[in-house]
Amino acid sequence: MKTFKYPTQEKWAALAQRPTLPKNELNETVNNIMNDVKQNGDEALFRLTEEFDGAKLDNLQVSDQEIEEAINAVPDELKKAIELAKNNITKFHKSQQTEEAIIETSVGVKCWRKSIAIEKVGLYIPGGTAPLFSTILMLGIPAKIASCKEIILCTPPAKDGTINPAILYTANLIGINIVVKCGGAQAIAALCYGTKSIASVNKIFGPGNQYVTSAKEKAQNYGVAIDMPAGPSEVLVIADETCNPIFVAADLLSQAEHGADSQVILLGINEFTLAKIEEELNQQLEQLPRKEIAKKALLNSKTILLNSMNDCFDFSNLYAPEHLIIASENTNLYIDQIINAGSVFLGNYSCESAGDYASGTNHTLPTNGYARNYSGVSLDSFVKKVTFQELSKTGIQNIGNAIELMAEAEELMAHKNAVTVRLKALQND
Amino acid sequence: MKTFKYPTQEKWAALAQRPTLPKNELNETVNNIMNDVKQNGDEALFRLTEEFDGAKLDNLQVSDQEIEEAINAVPDELKKAIELAKNNITKFHKSQQTEEAIIETSVGVKCWRKSIAIEKVGLYIPGGTAPLFSTILMLGIPAKIASCKEIILCTPPAKDGTINPAILYTANLIGINIVVKCGGAQAIAALCYGTKSIASVNKIFGPGNQYVTSAKEKAQNYGVAIDMPAGPSEVLVIADETCNPIFVAADLLSQAEHGADSQVILLGINEFTLAKIEEELNQQLEQLPRKEIAKKALLNSKTILLNSMNDCFDFSNLYAPEHLIIASENTNLYIDQIINAGSVFLGNYSCESAGDYASGTNHTLPTNGYARNYSGVSLDSFVKKVTFQELSKTGIQNIGNAIELMAEAEELMAHKNAVTVRLKALQND
Repeated sequence: MKTFKYPTQEKWAALAQRPTLPKNELNETVNNIMNDVKQNGDEALFRLTEEFDGAKLDNLQVSDQEIEEAINAVPDELKKAIELAKNNITKFHKSQQTEEAIIETSVGVKCWRKSIAIEKVGLYIPGGTAPLFSTILMLGIPAKIASCKEIILCTPPAKDGTINPAILYTANLIGINIVVKCGGAQAIAALCYGTKSIASVNKIFGPGNQYVTSAKEKAQNYGVAIDMPAGPSEVLVIADETCNPIFVAADLLSQAEHGADSQVILLGINEFTLAKIEEELNQQLEQLPRKEIAKKALLNSKTILLNSMNDCFDFSNLYAPEHLIIASENTNLYIDQIINAGSVFLGNYSCESAGDYASGTNHTLPTNGYARNYSGVSLDSFVKKVTFQELSKTGIQNIGNAIELMAEAEELMAHKNAVTVRLKALQND
Repeated sequence: MKTFKYPTQEKWAALAQRPTLPKNELNETVNNIMNDVKQNGDEALFRLTEEFDGAKLDNLQVSDQEIEEAINAVPDELKKAIELAKNNITKFHKSQQTEEAIIETSVGVKCWRKSIAIEKVGLYIPGGTAPLFSTILMLGIPAKIASCKEIILCTPPAKDGTINPAILYTANLIGINIVVKCGGAQAIAALCYGTKSIASVNKIFGPGNQYVTSAKEKAQNYGVAIDMPAGPSEVLVIADETCNPIFVAADLLSQAEHGADSQVILLGINEFTLAKIEEELNQQLEQLPRKEIAKKALLNSKTILLNSMNDCFDFSNLYAPEHLIIASENTNLYIDQIINAGSVFLGNYSCESAGDYASGTNHTLPTNGYARNYSGVSLDSFVKKVTFQELSKTGIQNIGNAIELMAEAEELMAHKNAVTVRLKALQND
């Protein structure tokens, strides 16, 4: 990690800058894949899955038998762990259900909002050696709580055409019945346009490589919504002298192992503490199976020594981290200073891994500075809040004249007339 | 309006289709404007305002004196109307403030969400002869309730460099202190990049012409969020035999007068009622100052006679209208059938104008089918919901092992280790 000591405020903006993402050169490739799927449907999916994943499939959809086999293949203790996570994530996301009151804004004028599930959602789960079943929990559980009518999970198959058992077990556990063996831009295209095997959806969720990200962006041009803009994962840790340097080092590394482009920032005001953390980090690093990846991420990572805890929070708000860890025994002092962050971990025992897997909060969070203007995924991401209003005769009599005056001032006379005809009818009532 | 009688379900998709929007040919123009503002700041704003709005300005920001003069210029009865609207909109949007509970998902694992205002927001209000001061209420009131720190209102000046008094009065009434005389793509560019006179913002709200819309889309590439994708305004009315044809005709026209591209759809199962509405509509149309605009909109508008009220709601959900009016005395029968709509108006006295101006609901709503996957503007649009978590020693002991197992199964050993170091430390505690 590069260390910066007491940088002046003018230098903060540069320090808080993310590396510019490599300009997207995939445009043409992704366009071709998407058009192919749009025109050729399932045939394209079978062909592209053979080309990109090396898997020759007979069926795109996972069969009941495959799911049964997966359930048997997952070790019992992992099943229990996943169930614990499921329960916590369910509790927290269920608490986000709100029954909003009917508000009578003027006498006879009733207004309210109703949360209505987005009907059809697609969940993308990347493939590769490590099965990201935790993301199924994070996306599938709120989708089920919201009562989305169709939930379609797409994930690329291995070369032998199989899907990792932990993925199938988790999907089945939370009641996702449609799992499609399809990955990459072709999966996103299928969710966007629909094919014979895959229904088109209203919103697409989930992480993915640059092809998937690019395809999700393009899907937005076809009326499909996406969860949020994508960027590399990141953590910012503010550590004071009451932190545990071993814990902080482990937390920094858990972010660094995600990918060479992961962003790791450590802030503090105690030089000795920061040095101790770095020392611990270098020791722990050597033990990691993914140390080569972590080392690359650490090359871009920063330790910044600042003058005050206030400065630490000001810098953090400027950076707007996806994950913010306050490694301190005195977190209560600081909570109100947090403005821009995706998810906040308070105190020495709240590691990012807890939120990544099992505490209950969602791990799909805004990166790349989007914590300034986006929330992470929550139950809200799977519903629309539709407003309703009902005016009684008294209601339109109470506010009708105000509407007429305002519509007239905006020169929208038909808007005015919609009120006038009602007020007139009531005069003759 | 074109009439379709009992179309078969296969024909619904085509009937629910919006006209394809003219392909955006403004790319280069808007890119040039945005780059100009990025490079030349205020100088570009003065120059472009002279070029596009014909106004030679000394100052971009509206002065206190101009605001005072505006307050005096607005007639008292319009002031009272705006105040009534303000009160209702405030009541409804304040009711959207939620204090979410702290959820203990496992013993010692506390999770919660906190709504934190987006710090800096920009509100764009179009110019032209009709001052859209109602949109200031709809965007400014929730921004104030959310406690956004900076609220910047941009609106183009008239040729003489002035802003319509109703705009300045309304902005002042709700406490917006920064009003900038700047419109078009150049205003969006200024809100995106910042200039000497205009701070850059985190999120841009508000309607506008195709240049503004295009610039808002481009601003998203610079980390700025926008309220929602844009499209022409639209209404779908479902009228049964208990409707008042005069009222329905007036409501259809109030949508049609918005613009030649406005979308108006009327559904029903009673041929006589639909014919009566059309007759009324043709009569009222002739009285309208904006009848030429309305006539153009009506050329693309559709009256569709269907077999059952169920069919009406199925069609409406397929279309996903921005505004949905249920013109009936029996709206309670139908509420639960509504899935996709931006804002719903129930019964014969709930005209769209009420929601456009003064009932309390927001009038910034998803168009072009986005009611399937987007909500309208609300208090939520001005905040991020940040998740927090705090694990006690007991907390990490309760869920730590589950995290370890899941992280290991995902082959993220540093994630596992962040828990292991804590559990080990507690064993030695």
